[in-house]
Amino acid sequence: MVRQERKDAMSIAWTSRYALRTKNIKSSAIRELLKITQRPEVISFAGGLPANDVFPIERFEETCKKVLEQNAVMALQYGETEGYKPLRDMIASRIARYGIKAQAENVLITTGSQQALDLIGKLLINSGDRVLVEAPTYLGALQAFNAYGAEYLSVPCDEEGLRTDLLEASLRFGPKFMYVLPNFQNPAGTTLSEDRRHTLVSLANKYGIPIVEDDPYGQLRYEGEHLPSLVVLDRENLPHDDGYTLGNVIYLSTFSKTLAPGLRLGWIVAPPEVIAKLVQLKQGADLHTSTFAQVVAYEVARDNFLDEHVRKLRDIYRERRDVMLAALAQYFPSQVRWTRPKGGLFLWVSLPEGMDANYLFREALKHNVAFVPGNSFFAASDQTQDGRRHLRLNFSHARPDEIREGIRRLSIAEKTQLEQLRSVRRT
Amino acid sequence: MVRQERKDAMSIAWTSRYALRTKNIKSSAIRELLKITQRPEVISFAGGLPANDVFPIERFEETCKKVLEQNAVMALQYGETEGYKPLRDMIASRIARYGIKAQAENVLITTGSQQALDLIGKLLINSGDRVLVEAPTYLGALQAFNAYGAEYLSVPCDEEGLRTDLLEASLRFGPKFMYVLPNFQNPAGTTLSEDRRHTLVSLANKYGIPIVEDDPYGQLRYEGEHLPSLVVLDRENLPHDDGYTLGNVIYLSTFSKTLAPGLRLGWIVAPPEVIAKLVQLKQGADLHTSTFAQVVAYEVARDNFLDEHVRKLRDIYRERRDVMLAALAQYFPSQVRWTRPKGGLFLWVSLPEGMDANYLFREALKHNVAFVPGNSFFAASDQTQDGRRHLRLNFSHARPDEIREGIRRLSIAEKTQLEQLRSVRRT
Repeated sequence: MVRQERKDAMSIAWTSRYALRTKNIKSSAIRELLKITQRPEVISFAGGLPANDVFPIERFEETCKKVLEQNAVMALQYGETEGYKPLRDMIASRIARYGIKAQAENVLITTGSQQALDLIGKLLINSGDRVLVEAPTYLGALQAFNAYGAEYLSVPCDEEGLRTDLLEASLRFGPKFMYVLPNFQNPAGTTLSEDRRHTLVSLANKYGIPIVEDDPYGQLRYEGEHLPSLVVLDRENLPHDDGYTLGNVIYLSTFSKTLAPGLRLGWIVAPPEVIAKLVQLKQGADLHTSTFAQVVAYEVARDNFLDEHVRKLRDIYRERRDVMLAALAQYFPSQVRWTRPKGGLFLWVSLPEGMDANYLFREALKHNVAFVPGNSFFAASDQTQDGRRHLRLNFSHARPDEIREGIRRLSIAEKTQLEQLRSVRRT
Repeated sequence: MVRQERKDAMSIAWTSRYALRTKNIKSSAIRELLKITQRPEVISFAGGLPANDVFPIERFEETCKKVLEQNAVMALQYGETEGYKPLRDMIASRIARYGIKAQAENVLITTGSQQALDLIGKLLINSGDRVLVEAPTYLGALQAFNAYGAEYLSVPCDEEGLRTDLLEASLRFGPKFMYVLPNFQNPAGTTLSEDRRHTLVSLANKYGIPIVEDDPYGQLRYEGEHLPSLVVLDRENLPHDDGYTLGNVIYLSTFSKTLAPGLRLGWIVAPPEVIAKLVQLKQGADLHTSTFAQVVAYEVARDNFLDEHVRKLRDIYRERRDVMLAALAQYFPSQVRWTRPKGGLFLWVSLPEGMDANYLFREALKHNVAFVPGNSFFAASDQTQDGRRHLRLNFSHARPDEIREGIRRLSIAEKTQLEQLRSVRRT
């Protein structure tokens, strides 16, 4: 037996043991900001949080009681990696309304759609592979893909979403896949037009490049008609259509924006052979998503409850969006521009040239209002866009009166910064 | 706009897009077996499942009601990546009883301890790095580490656990870290002796190799005294001990075996700088573990409920272990050997030379009894051990009468195979 003298031990220098991939990983700006902005006096437009006052608490209470009386062992025991079968059936039948012909075998339940992004990165990305993303794009996706050593090809967006006229040049660089948010994009709030959707799936097909379609907000449309999912358009191009066994599109969604993010429930819809491989990866990642959360969510959502609840959310969030748009028009000068989202949780503000949203953030905090500066939403390798001139505003979490007051405070911070900028230019 | 003619599209060959790491990934034999063995007529010793009849269902019911009445918004909303603070405090104070001086800043809540293994692989393993593991070891760890391209150094175990007398030779190959299960090991059921624990931490210190100590079953001890954790022994060696900021050991545990696996709640205990990096990786992996599951688990466990519940579990599982040991002695011939675990959920059976647990598995299924063949528990690169002669039996899930009957059936399958083997040898 080797037993050394005590008190001579050295501690390991842990950082020197970290894998190379950790060099690409920074903490999410948003999550660090959320901590700062939890002070009660701060009006926060920073997070992507559902409103605190919309959770269907009574329904959860009845449901938990029912589940624990009727189905407790199932809900508390280990479950299948694929997910709770009735929930997968429900998801398949819900998306069928939008023309996506899926069955349970096309659905994998994930621990929030953040895990869906992580598993897709694990499945597809070799270190150095390029992922084609929108500029700006969802920072959680960048964070998930960075862990697998992704490089990026960024394609700009405008009011109609991804600039598909600029897409082909980037596709010729050979991205491993494209990651797009067609509906009420995070962060920009824009929606990809129907024409561009057709162009996107045609180009994906022409170059043989898969699409990952992330759709967390699709149900939260406040005006206009639902536009067809990329899955649906892609399948229209197929020579035959015998169920969802083929196709170039993986589709993601979640209950985080419609039911409750605290459940951590998302899903991946894909051809069964892709699901089978993702199941193997998920086994190693967390065995399966909480059975308790899955059974409760299924029982809460069933019997049209989720549809009724989503209708209520649409009314509440539509009003908040309108209040924010009106307050922006009232308080902000004409040099500041913003998107007018038809749904979702966010809008995207563009500041006049020379302004910097990171400085504005610090100034805004002095006035007890918070948002996320735009540079977090651009891939680090993307030199074409100036993220610093942009900011993301969430309109779902704060109440209407808070939204008005928050935008007023933000406009004061903006004017302060603008004056400082002018005085610097004068000197 | 590019809109191609319809019906000319080709589907992507998805498998050709998969990342290199997926070549190392197979589905867990256990999870596939669990599906086969879910037929009600099968007595299964295969899974690592808690008994169905021990879940504290009433306590869960009261707790869900209380949480949703008093704390619903917190439980349903997004939470911090680190985990629910009261739960982290509780875990820190629980492990303090065993001499591990941790605070909340040392604790990261994970989506089951499977995610702890995945995050540790993500943090530490570069493709081709060697991980030192016990032979046999927990197959879920191999599965998690395989996704990061781990190679393995396997060190054999005996009745006293890891053969620390054989450890130094392997340490000189420079493993990135060691992964060990000191208490009631999965699959072998053995416990690392106190002398060997001292040797292990001393050698880890001598070579500067970190230890990942996985302890899912530590509380489920049915006889004898608790042995000191590797964290504690490692810290005794430190020249000064001002809180858990240094040290060579990362410690893992879970509520899956003491409360309910369906919650998917595990944790990592480590120096704060390691926790901070793991938090960044977890942000990209699933943002955070279900707040609902965390708040419910905290409220279920508090006020000594968990301790009382664990005492009950010990009595139930001790009886089942004793029934299985007695049935093995009654039904099996003397050439078959097995371990006598002092705790946990498993024992490990060694068959006579020439027998193959994979054949026995097929024969056993004909008799409606199931287990996990041993070869799943050895790293693929490990040529030193013959996993085929071993099988893992779980004694926590089946009831005592089922255990007796299952072992009787298994002995018939074993005798059938032994006779076939003899007749082959005769010819």
